[in-house]
Amino acid sequence: MGKVICVGLGPGDRELMSVKSDRLIRTARHVAYFRKEGRQGQARRIVEGMLPTDVTEHAMEYPVTTEIHFSDPEYNRLLSAFYDDWADKLCALTADEDVVVLCEGDPFFYGSFMHLYTRLKPRCDIDVIPAITGMSGCWTATGQPITWGDDVLTVCMATLPEDELTRRAKDSDALVFMKIGRNLPKVKRALEAAGKLQDAWLVERGTMPDQTVQKLTDVGDTVPYFSIAIVHGNGRRP
Amino acid sequence: MGKVICVGLGPGDRELMSVKSDRLIRTARHVAYFRKEGRQGQARRIVEGMLPTDVTEHAMEYPVTTEIHFSDPEYNRLLSAFYDDWADKLCALTADEDVVVLCEGDPFFYGSFMHLYTRLKPRCDIDVIPAITGMSGCWTATGQPITWGDDVLTVCMATLPEDELTRRAKDSDALVFMKIGRNLPKVKRALEAAGKLQDAWLVERGTMPDQTVQKLTDVGDTVPYFSIAIVHGNGRRP
Ligand SMILES: C[S@@+](CC[C@H](N)C(=O)[O-])C[C@H]1O[C@@H](n2cnc3c(N)ncnc32)[C@H](O)[C@@H]1O
Ligand SMILES: C[S@@+](CC[C@H](N)C(=O)[O-])C[C@H]1O[C@@H](n2cnc3c(N)ncnc32)[C@H](O)[C@@H]1O
Repeated sequence: MGKVICVGLGPGDRELMSVKSDRLIRTARHVAYFRKEGRQGQARRIVEGMLPTDVTEHAMEYPVTTEIHFSDPEYNRLLSAFYDDWADKLCALTADEDVVVLCEGDPFFYGSFMHLYTRLKPRCDIDVIPAITGMSGCWTATGQPITWGDDVLTVCMATLPEDELTRRAKDSDALVFMKIGRNLPKVKRALEAAGKLQDAWLVERGTMPDQTVQKLTDVGDTVPYFSIAIVHGNGRRP
Repeated sequence: MGKVICVGLGPGDRELMSVKSDRLIRTARHVAYFRKEGRQGQARRIVEGMLPTDVTEHAMEYPVTTEIHFSDPEYNRLLSAFYDDWADKLCALTADEDVVVLCEGDPFFYGSFMHLYTRLKPRCDIDVIPAITGMSGCWTATGQPITWGDDVLTVCMATLPEDELTRRAKDSDALVFMKIGRNLPKVKRALEAAGKLQDAWLVERGTMPDQTVQKLTDVGDTVPYFSIAIVHGNGRRP
């Protein structure tokens, strides 16, 4: 009997993958990964050149990403059916062999894999390998520690309403905003209203070959999906 | 000319170290690490058996840990002199060779190394290798994802005042409290006041051989320094 092993891939640089994830990928018989239809997908890109030649690949293509808003019940129905279907398929594979599921960053930290996890857990053996989060890769790229002493760190999705982002920004020492993408103007306004825009950094594709690190005020109108906004804490330091 | 390379060690399990940290440690000529006087120290323990036989070790022993409260100016003075002194020593070593500094978890996330970093940065070449945080190791150990959808995650030190911990606990979807140790009773009271004590988990020594995962309500009176309290988020899930 095999199991499903979800391996966290870390922020993008393959050398930042754990020794354990690295080994599991290089010896995998089956790998599965999410991607947008017609794209290679970031998870698959990270492991390029690492997979055994006789591996079987399972591309799990989202039926919808941003074409329908997540508040639409249809979004929920489509995604739910998609996860149900792949949970069935992966579970069936474990009758014979292990299946390695690739997941960007740390799987349990806002990862899509979690939706498979809850479906698989009651039905088959399942392991999750933690990994370096995208935000760790990004704050390291800024060359400045994120939190000191008793600093409070708040992590928010930029998909939240603007006033909520403003409130959170005001009420935290260190800040990480994820899922910037089309929410960039909102993020700028919220940080401005909180008096923190001048202290904010924007990291695109942290630890990847085309990484950029900029002051948020220098950023143009569009940023990629893999972008994180950061405000560093300023706590106690002897 | 050499440089100082701070390698994050991750939460404790050596297999969770990055491929890069693993390689840098196994080929180091000089390694430095913090520890309490007379102890082996957690960072050094993690790399036991990995260091080359001819490596030179530099144990950086804190002049004070909890004997003096951090609000006492003497605490600050002692620690500051200690970091100054080690910055000088490490910088001098880089005249000839690289120095690998070991750091538990992710170095820029509440790590002691940051105090050396700010002193070294203007004076010598310095690299920081991110790593899996203790909290990622701990939430993975609970077998439950930490954040879903638009969940807000707040990370606090349990050294904060009780009313501040209560306020933060009330105002966040997912919670991580670090530095529990002697703050355990305060953490329990704060979570109780926020109505979240029943949902809280306590992970001791996450990913280490003697890891424990318990409901916080089942925990006794004392917990080790390496303990994290966790409340999982409950956001959107298709
Ligand atoms: C669905 S979340 C997945 C988070 C992932 N599980 C982790 O641990 O980082 C996707 C968001 O993560 C952030 N992200 C992840 N890796 C990143 C990287 N290398 N550079 C910039 N942003 C990244 C972006 O904000 C992106 O919108
Ligand atoms: C000074 S902070 C260092 C954090 C570290 N740089 C990181 O990235 O996790 C020390 C605190 O980290 C937490 N911690 C780190 N690793 C842990 C582990 N494996 N298990 C439980 N707690 C851990 C504990 O709360 C401890 O008091």
